[in-house]
Amino acid sequence: MAARKQRVLRLGLPKGSLQQTTERAFKLAGFDLRISGRSYYPDIDDPEIECILIRAQEMARYVQQGVLDAGITGIDWTLENRAKVKELADLRAPWPNYNPVRWVVAVKEGSKIRKPVDLEGKRIATEVVNLTKRYLRQHGVKATVEFSWGATEVKPPVLADAIVDVTETGSSLRANNLRVIDTVLESTPRFIANRESHGDDWKRQKMERIALLLQGAIAAADRVGLMMNVPKPRLEKILGLLPALGTPTISTLADESWVAINTVIAESVVTELLPRLRESGARGIVEYPLNKIVD
Amino acid sequence: MAARKQRVLRLGLPKGSLQQTTERAFKLAGFDLRISGRSYYPDIDDPEIECILIRAQEMARYVQQGVLDAGITGIDWTLENRAKVKELADLRAPWPNYNPVRWVVAVKEGSKIRKPVDLEGKRIATEVVNLTKRYLRQHGVKATVEFSWGATEVKPPVLADAIVDVTETGSSLRANNLRVIDTVLESTPRFIANRESHGDDWKRQKMERIALLLQGAIAAADRVGLMMNVPKPRLEKILGLLPALGTPTISTLADESWVAINTVIAESVVTELLPRLRESGARGIVEYPLNKIVD
Amino acid sequence: MAARKQRVLRLGLPKGSLQQTTERAFKLAGFDLRISGRSYYPDIDDPEIECILIRAQEMARYVQQGVLDAGITGIDWTLENRAKVKELADLRAPWPNYNPVRWVVAVKEGSKIRKPVDLEGKRIATEVVNLTKRYLRQHGVKATVEFSWGATEVKPPVLADAIVDVTETGSSLRANNLRVIDTVLESTPRFIANRESHGDDWKRQKMERIALLLQGAIAAADRVGLMMNVPKPRLEKILGLLPALGTPTISTLADESWVAINTVIAESVVTELLPRLRESGARGIVEYPLNKIVD
Amino acid sequence: MAARKQRVLRLGLPKGSLQQTTERAFKLAGFDLRISGRSYYPDIDDPEIECILIRAQEMARYVQQGVLDAGITGIDWTLENRAKVKELADLRAPWPNYNPVRWVVAVKEGSKIRKPVDLEGKRIATEVVNLTKRYLRQHGVKATVEFSWGATEVKPPVLADAIVDVTETGSSLRANNLRVIDTVLESTPRFIANRESHGDDWKRQKMERIALLLQGAIAAADRVGLMMNVPKPRLEKILGLLPALGTPTISTLADESWVAINTVIAESVVTELLPRLRESGARGIVEYPLNKIVD
Amino acid sequence: MAARKQRVLRLGLPKGSLQQTTERAFKLAGFDLRISGRSYYPDIDDPEIECILIRAQEMARYVQQGVLDAGITGIDWTLENRAKVKELADLRAPWPNYNPVRWVVAVKEGSKIRKPVDLEGKRIATEVVNLTKRYLRQHGVKATVEFSWGATEVKPPVLADAIVDVTETGSSLRANNLRVIDTVLESTPRFIANRESHGDDWKRQKMERIALLLQGAIAAADRVGLMMNVPKPRLEKILGLLPALGTPTISTLADESWVAINTVIAESVVTELLPRLRESGARGIVEYPLNKIVD
Amino acid sequence: MAARKQRVLRLGLPKGSLQQTTERAFKLAGFDLRISGRSYYPDIDDPEIECILIRAQEMARYVQQGVLDAGITGIDWTLENRAKVKELADLRAPWPNYNPVRWVVAVKEGSKIRKPVDLEGKRIATEVVNLTKRYLRQHGVKATVEFSWGATEVKPPVLADAIVDVTETGSSLRANNLRVIDTVLESTPRFIANRESHGDDWKRQKMERIALLLQGAIAAADRVGLMMNVPKPRLEKILGLLPALGTPTISTLADESWVAINTVIAESVVTELLPRLRESGARGIVEYPLNKIVD
Repeated sequence: MAARKQRVLRLGLPKGSLQQTTERAFKLAGFDLRISGRSYYPDIDDPEIECILIRAQEMARYVQQGVLDAGITGIDWTLENRAKVKELADLRAPWPNYNPVRWVVAVKEGSKIRKPVDLEGKRIATEVVNLTKRYLRQHGVKATVEFSWGATEVKPPVLADAIVDVTETGSSLRANNLRVIDTVLESTPRFIANRESHGDDWKRQKMERIALLLQGAIAAADRVGLMMNVPKPRLEKILGLLPALGTPTISTLADESWVAINTVIAESVVTELLPRLRESGARGIVEYPLNKIVD
Repeated sequence: MAARKQRVLRLGLPKGSLQQTTERAFKLAGFDLRISGRSYYPDIDDPEIECILIRAQEMARYVQQGVLDAGITGIDWTLENRAKVKELADLRAPWPNYNPVRWVVAVKEGSKIRKPVDLEGKRIATEVVNLTKRYLRQHGVKATVEFSWGATEVKPPVLADAIVDVTETGSSLRANNLRVIDTVLESTPRFIANRESHGDDWKRQKMERIALLLQGAIAAADRVGLMMNVPKPRLEKILGLLPALGTPTISTLADESWVAINTVIAESVVTELLPRLRESGARGIVEYPLNKIVD
Repeated sequence: MAARKQRVLRLGLPKGSLQQTTERAFKLAGFDLRISGRSYYPDIDDPEIECILIRAQEMARYVQQGVLDAGITGIDWTLENRAKVKELADLRAPWPNYNPVRWVVAVKEGSKIRKPVDLEGKRIATEVVNLTKRYLRQHGVKATVEFSWGATEVKPPVLADAIVDVTETGSSLRANNLRVIDTVLESTPRFIANRESHGDDWKRQKMERIALLLQGAIAAADRVGLMMNVPKPRLEKILGLLPALGTPTISTLADESWVAINTVIAESVVTELLPRLRESGARGIVEYPLNKIVD
Repeated sequence: MAARKQRVLRLGLPKGSLQQTTERAFKLAGFDLRISGRSYYPDIDDPEIECILIRAQEMARYVQQGVLDAGITGIDWTLENRAKVKELADLRAPWPNYNPVRWVVAVKEGSKIRKPVDLEGKRIATEVVNLTKRYLRQHGVKATVEFSWGATEVKPPVLADAIVDVTETGSSLRANNLRVIDTVLESTPRFIANRESHGDDWKRQKMERIALLLQGAIAAADRVGLMMNVPKPRLEKILGLLPALGTPTISTLADESWVAINTVIAESVVTELLPRLRESGARGIVEYPLNKIVD
Repeated sequence: MAARKQRVLRLGLPKGSLQQTTERAFKLAGFDLRISGRSYYPDIDDPEIECILIRAQEMARYVQQGVLDAGITGIDWTLENRAKVKELADLRAPWPNYNPVRWVVAVKEGSKIRKPVDLEGKRIATEVVNLTKRYLRQHGVKATVEFSWGATEVKPPVLADAIVDVTETGSSLRANNLRVIDTVLESTPRFIANRESHGDDWKRQKMERIALLLQGAIAAADRVGLMMNVPKPRLEKILGLLPALGTPTISTLADESWVAINTVIAESVVTELLPRLRESGARGIVEYPLNKIVD
Repeated sequence: MAARKQRVLRLGLPKGSLQQTTERAFKLAGFDLRISGRSYYPDIDDPEIECILIRAQEMARYVQQGVLDAGITGIDWTLENRAKVKELADLRAPWPNYNPVRWVVAVKEGSKIRKPVDLEGKRIATEVVNLTKRYLRQHGVKATVEFSWGATEVKPPVLADAIVDVTETGSSLRANNLRVIDTVLESTPRFIANRESHGDDWKRQKMERIALLLQGAIAAADRVGLMMNVPKPRLEKILGLLPALGTPTISTLADESWVAINTVIAESVVTELLPRLRESGARGIVEYPLNKIVD
């Protein structure tokens, strides 16, 4: 009888700005992932997964080629590389660099370029040459697009007339006295798969479970648990105050005139909700932290 | 029909030693407050609040003048400025710089000044000139009070005969070989309001809700949640061991000979309580962290 | 009537590699322990305990002599000192330096020394001279054992033929191109007591309670809480999926066709378990963090 | 016969922004001065000097009182304190914080305040209340002057209408979008003496020697040594190129058709001078660093 | 009479690995150059120079286009960009990143690729796509060249069969277990000029003076000054020991049986030379540091 | 004809407190020595020297055994190891850790132990067990000497009655409230040689040249160069002011009524000497830094 060979999923993790948050995301999802300073092959406590660090810019290329079964990278770089891959999950999350970013056309304050058509005949510096050319085609504009090795935001007006650059809050653009005139693309991190790998049952289930756990951690990231005791006559009213995020668990208590509510709410409504719950009769309100939510 | 204008509460946050803890307190209270390195106008995720960083020393002055509706500062600086403001909450908390501090009269070890009356005719260096003068008047003592720009604790005996300085643990005084001869004031951080703003219904409710949430976070700071299963015959005894901090929630279990207790206790009693609960028959004792408590 | 004198337990905490984790362990156990940079006498919020920082290497010596009632140190140094002490708990935990370490015999890659008997007549450098001599006696080998003041791993082949050195993951050995030929001892941190102190009722109970709390924190270190709602018909199946780590608490809900399960599981099974629970019908699955577990 | 008592000069060194440069200035002047982190009494290798760290703001006050014989502080704080002291040397130097600084009146960009008289009736925040009041009197303007505990530059326009603040390059003002409308005072660090101490022969000579050495170090700070060989016929021309900073030393060489020039020049002319010297026939031009210059 | 307009030279300084050393080189050359953290327009104390920070990769492109008159960048990037520019000076210097670097072809240890022709049909990852293609053409080899966004050295063997990467000491290659099979190019930093600017007399002279000063600082970087007194009869012999780096200055002394020698030598011969000079009769040997040497 | 084999000197450099200064000393002596973070085999630019980092405590042992030809370590550890080696130079220098240190007997303030004989029967903790036992024998005292793994200064009075510990300024002892009752040994770093290696002509000359260069750097460490112009009539007087540290070089000037003096003086006399030279007629006094002095 032959030994069963261990099957393995080759997973690309993004080196660079997404790296730290990705490491944290896998830890929150329950994996013991260790990226040591020098190695490009992080350790993970699942023998069925083999990790490799890859630049976000190159990820989609290697996933398409099949060097990797799956990977995490922004939709921007997948499109820039014109890579043909299968998207399994949008990993937008309230974490640094996992928030949506925008690629925008920007010019120096005071520039005469005010709308896309004004770019006609100009020099545009950018790290995403293909995305920019596609954008110009869509607007029927002809312009010179030069690859920028970085520090793109300081190029106008001397080294370029306009740029296509990435921004999360716009603060770097403002600091360089640039004005946004249009958005080329909004991008978030995605969990992408090689098409052939996705056709393999074992690999697809493996990838879907990883996605489920990452999404469970993301769901918990901006929510909290809330327990409280409520007098039975007020139950209806208080349930009405709670947002519809999953059904609250109502359990009976030894003192039968009260019930206990246990629920999950978005952290962003806490400052609004807590004072009202108290005013409506809830007592012993306790907010506690969560690791993961799977509904 | 006219657009409703957004009402706004102007809130002063203390720059300096209280700043870091204040930032954390607002985050624990549920606000997304961001103090960026250079700006004095922190971002907060509540459009009804406008924050501004102000030195603790100047806070009460600006709250009294009405430049601010409310602010956080120590009672010491409110008194030093002789500011007429309304106090909404004492924010004493087990956090750095939110613990009580004392302003004390201190002299060099070996000094002949041993009690308040010995200060007669001496030079006293201090950052709180008004508090010190009031203190001297209360003791019927006349002395020269000089404003100190800092490093007050190294002035005796060359540059001053005595000082009035602030201390949390006394270690800085001991390190400079100083002896405390009297306490001028014990101070904690307070949530203060402009009197006129407090008369405005919308502003008062807004301020009270902020105070409620801050106090909810403070209440959770040194408490923990405790769940355990208890055989019904032992319930009485085990309830007797639990401190009276809010009523424990007792819920019924599928196995009817046991009940589940869920409660909140002070972290400081855990090391005492846990071994006893186990000896009294509780099982599956689980301690978990809390974010906020509103009773 | 005479005043009751406060009884005190003298407890040694290990200075050096175990220190930081020990400080954290006591905090997790519920003690407010503060090791200030310069003092060797940490503050603790239990007047019945007096702490002192001692090198792990010397701990057992002072516990045996009775200078200390109890202490925390590796079993390796207790054996190296041939100290006669009572062991109360093995504190192996998933924390830095609290994982098991191994003392191994290592030689340079390519050395002709391949097994213990090849050490005959060689120079061995080590920090644990007694352990090494005992090991050589057990193998009937004669060799020169020299005390090494540190950096033992760089000594072969110039300054020593072989070394006996400590390793957790083996990475420092590999980095120095060393090959392990045998294990001398596996070691973990232990809670040890002076024998006479252990015979004293008050001291023994005090020590056992400290051990219970430390073990409660260790038990929580790699586990998490799990709550979920389950349709009654699926209860049996879902309970079958849960590992046998303590009995789950099953509580009744207002909606009688569902029950709520609350349990504690090892963090390492989460990535495996969560997808399966969902597939089996559990809903509202929430994972939350724990501080302490006492069963 | 009686022992000669050691005479001592009490010297105040400025704590704060001037401190680090002052420490360096004394070292360059030849003193072994050590300011240890915690002590306010720096060690110096001259038993006739006793150093004490004092805030620049308070220095002149203590020099006037005679607690100190001499001290280093900005002329700004001497004037703010209206202190009667004797100035021995202006220590302006090309070092951080030893460059001249300016106290300026600044307002928010766009403010209607454009010249001193526009300050009439306004609120001005400043750390130098007396200087500001004197300035207003000189301009015949009446305004409210409030003491500012710091971060003065962020106060306009909410907390103040204008400020009087210190600036070296103006960058902090620009960063806060402030516009300078007038200069109140230009200030540099000065070596000041108590008047009575200055009348004492021993103390005066001691102070003058310290000043000579500090000025020697300052003189060397932006100069360099320059050696070169010059053919005799070109000597006249090349001497004509050299700035008149002290007479160059011309020495004879073994090869009598050449002479060697050794001189000291300002570092700021090097980039201009070196290419010209070479073009004029100088060879073996060597620039070397200097420690001190006393002419 | 019309005002003379200030003429200005636009000078590109390399952002990135060459930046810090370039800043230091200009300071050593006598310029007061300040690169502040955020600005891309460094300040320089010569009103005839305007600096701008540009990536080394893009420098030659902008110099060729005439956006810049001159710039500093490696010869590698000038060739990669196929830029037509005038080279004024090779700035190779014993400073970090100013040492020569090599672009090499490297493969994984154990790879079957051993010489250039073995690259036929392989995938090569590199940051210098053009240099690599030129190299392949020269060897008559056809291969796929893929642009690498960084971390090129970790790509073999999974993501590439071979790489063309830059190395100074080879240590990063060895750490990744790569073997160098050929050198594509040795590169040093160069001072390059736009061809048209070089044709302008004022600009050319300005550029040549900057180059002279930079080379003067480089010449001083690994040399020292040496003074010594020599008995006349030993003069011949001792002069024979001195390396021929410029003629030593021999000056007469008051004591006519001795002469003084002052010379400049390479720092690398000091350890060899000093003991010999002493053995040959030189006394009062003093070695001193230099700032700049122009011969 | 056979190839000449390269001869090599094996040189031990001290790891630990002496390391950083030793690295600097070799650089000042003219060697390009590089100690990289992880390697124990520093690179040096002299192919005749092979360096190895060794703990100061073990250096003499390996020099005696002949594993090393020479090494640098304190005389304290040579004596503690009772090593038979040849001392070539005392490297005491005004650098951190190259100043003399003292091993002292210290007890807690208030201890009854006041002089050596009071140690009779006590427990002494120390890192230098042999030195301590030798010291006790010399005083005819019997006591228990226990090896201390470190932090020796905190052991009295609980863990030891007295200690023998090393101190440079005594500040650590004072901080622990210890009183020094006697000095066991004053120690400085020494350049030591294996006896047999010292008998080899090539090795001895090599070692003596290294020692000469190190001593040249040490000699320059606290001296400076001084040049000045002096009117001939004042020459005598001014020469009389100069300390006798080597003969000043007097050179003739073009202006024959002046001469130039160039000399080397101790930095410690500068503050005294400069004012006097000026008062005596010297002009153009220039102090400059030195690298090395060999007389």
